[in-house]
Amino acid sequence: MRIIVDAMGGDNAPLEIIKGSVDAHNEYGVDITFVGQEDVIKSVAAENNLDISSYEIINASEVIATDEDPSSVLKKKPDSSISVGLKRLSEGEGDAFISAGNSGALCVGGTLITKRIKGVKRPGFAPIMPHFGGGCFMLIDAGANLEARPEMLLQYALMGNAYMKNVMKIENPRVGLANVGTEAHKGLELQHNAYELLKQADINFIGNVEGRDLPYGKCDVVVCDGFIGNVILKTYEGTAKAVMGKLKDLFYKNTKSKIAAALVMSDLKNMIKEFDYHEYGGAPIMGTAKPVFKAHGSAKAKTIKNAIRLTKEYVEADVINEISEALK
Amino acid sequence: MRIIVDAMGGDNAPLEIIKGSVDAHNEYGVDITFVGQEDVIKSVAAENNLDISSYEIINASEVIATDEDPSSVLKKKPDSSISVGLKRLSEGEGDAFISAGNSGALCVGGTLITKRIKGVKRPGFAPIMPHFGGGCFMLIDAGANLEARPEMLLQYALMGNAYMKNVMKIENPRVGLANVGTEAHKGLELQHNAYELLKQADINFIGNVEGRDLPYGKCDVVVCDGFIGNVILKTYEGTAKAVMGKLKDLFYKNTKSKIAAALVMSDLKNMIKEFDYHEYGGAPIMGTAKPVFKAHGSAKAKTIKNAIRLTKEYVEADVINEISEALK
Repeated sequence: MRIIVDAMGGDNAPLEIIKGSVDAHNEYGVDITFVGQEDVIKSVAAENNLDISSYEIINASEVIATDEDPSSVLKKKPDSSISVGLKRLSEGEGDAFISAGNSGALCVGGTLITKRIKGVKRPGFAPIMPHFGGGCFMLIDAGANLEARPEMLLQYALMGNAYMKNVMKIENPRVGLANVGTEAHKGLELQHNAYELLKQADINFIGNVEGRDLPYGKCDVVVCDGFIGNVILKTYEGTAKAVMGKLKDLFYKNTKSKIAAALVMSDLKNMIKEFDYHEYGGAPIMGTAKPVFKAHGSAKAKTIKNAIRLTKEYVEADVINEISEALK
Repeated sequence: MRIIVDAMGGDNAPLEIIKGSVDAHNEYGVDITFVGQEDVIKSVAAENNLDISSYEIINASEVIATDEDPSSVLKKKPDSSISVGLKRLSEGEGDAFISAGNSGALCVGGTLITKRIKGVKRPGFAPIMPHFGGGCFMLIDAGANLEARPEMLLQYALMGNAYMKNVMKIENPRVGLANVGTEAHKGLELQHNAYELLKQADINFIGNVEGRDLPYGKCDVVVCDGFIGNVILKTYEGTAKAVMGKLKDLFYKNTKSKIAAALVMSDLKNMIKEFDYHEYGGAPIMGTAKPVFKAHGSAKAKTIKNAIRLTKEYVEADVINEISEALK
């Protein structure tokens, strides 16, 4: 199996990306193709004693910045690492593509360069989020398409179900519809119609879920339009991060607090690990004809290694085919 | 000043409601009128040695449950404490109405029984939320109207601005538009059009804000439609509560962890207090012709006392008139 890795994407590129890829290659035996500025990749690897002499490198002269307009991936920067990586993926030069770069560009490029699975209306951006039940859930869509129709929400549910079952090994994923209350009549026309479609689908639909249910792991797949999903993603991640940050300040304050921290260190570490985005690696773009995976923008080597492991399972479990069958 | 208090609303009614009202009467000198089942109110007060002999009580035989359809307030339960309280308010028998009961019923009843301020298109449900900057912000609308037009968002901004300035004493409230990114072009047509209106309004508009900005107190008023607002409210509150709960479990685990807790107790208490919903008391229904205030459903005596204090300031600062002027 060969995975194409965008060496230039994310806050810690290219060093952490290269490191994580080398670790994944050594541990999981996958072949890696780097795409990006070849001279930069080679010199950073050499400076850090990372032997990548046996790795394939595809040169791409441009980089799409995180805050850049996603449509750059198509016309403005055709030689960017994301554009080139996705093109090579669609031409069959690898089994999957991973990037920690611009999410929007990955969604647009994944849809238009890699193309969609037959029957998929719109690919969804689907982060894997940690919860305090000790596991994770998929949020789909978290911003690829701000508006959605009921049948798109149904497809998100079917795709999320296939991923969580086959890659995250959850036997009968519980699928919930994000809404403003748990009763069936809650929400707007989109939610009412989607509710009916989800009820009839061949999935374990548990009904409406609210933002306050998510930290407790009430369901495994949360379905919503991209606007709501993006709001949930940022509020959830932002609030957890703020509370954790506050806690860290509290423990670092003085000698007494440092002693307190030492006394509960192992539990604290576990708590932080449970809520660590780096454990889950990121977000698959669900619905593209070949696996495209977005690693967290602040990805370090460990995140990239995890992302490669998940993507390997994504390829091996043939989730693309599972989705294709589910949509028929 | 006379404040009408729904003695039957919320998880801890009527005891905590009566207690908080008595405390507020003693401390702030406001007159209280209870509305609810008179015999229950009197017997609970007597059993708990609360002297309410000088308080007015308006009998209302019915109670609207928290999960009941909000429209009950109009036809199905005309003798409920919320319906009767709002009717008496609109008839001039008090200066404001406070309830910890059904939010939806308060919004519907506030709009249709108390009526709207002239020019207000739709009243907004506007919780006051704590943040980690040590203050609070208003989220408007958090669910009174799931859909909104741009001019409604502008009105929410103007009403929120008037409240935060006059009641919460924030000099030049920073108003933000909840969106999926900070750049002006982000979001859908609603956000684009609202952005233009907010930019031209006589307020301190700081542009788009994201869910991750909220815990850090980036703005004082967050404007959005009721669907987005409800999602933010529940995700924000739910996530913070989950992290705090996890932390509590950690500290209660064993002797060692309890020693650690003791070492950082005062800072921990401050942290929890900063994020305590009971400190801010709840949510005004902005846009009703007389002040209607929703106390948190889990309100205890302290919450009710704070809600009464805020409502007193709401009346004294003549926010209703301020809003009326701002909308002209």
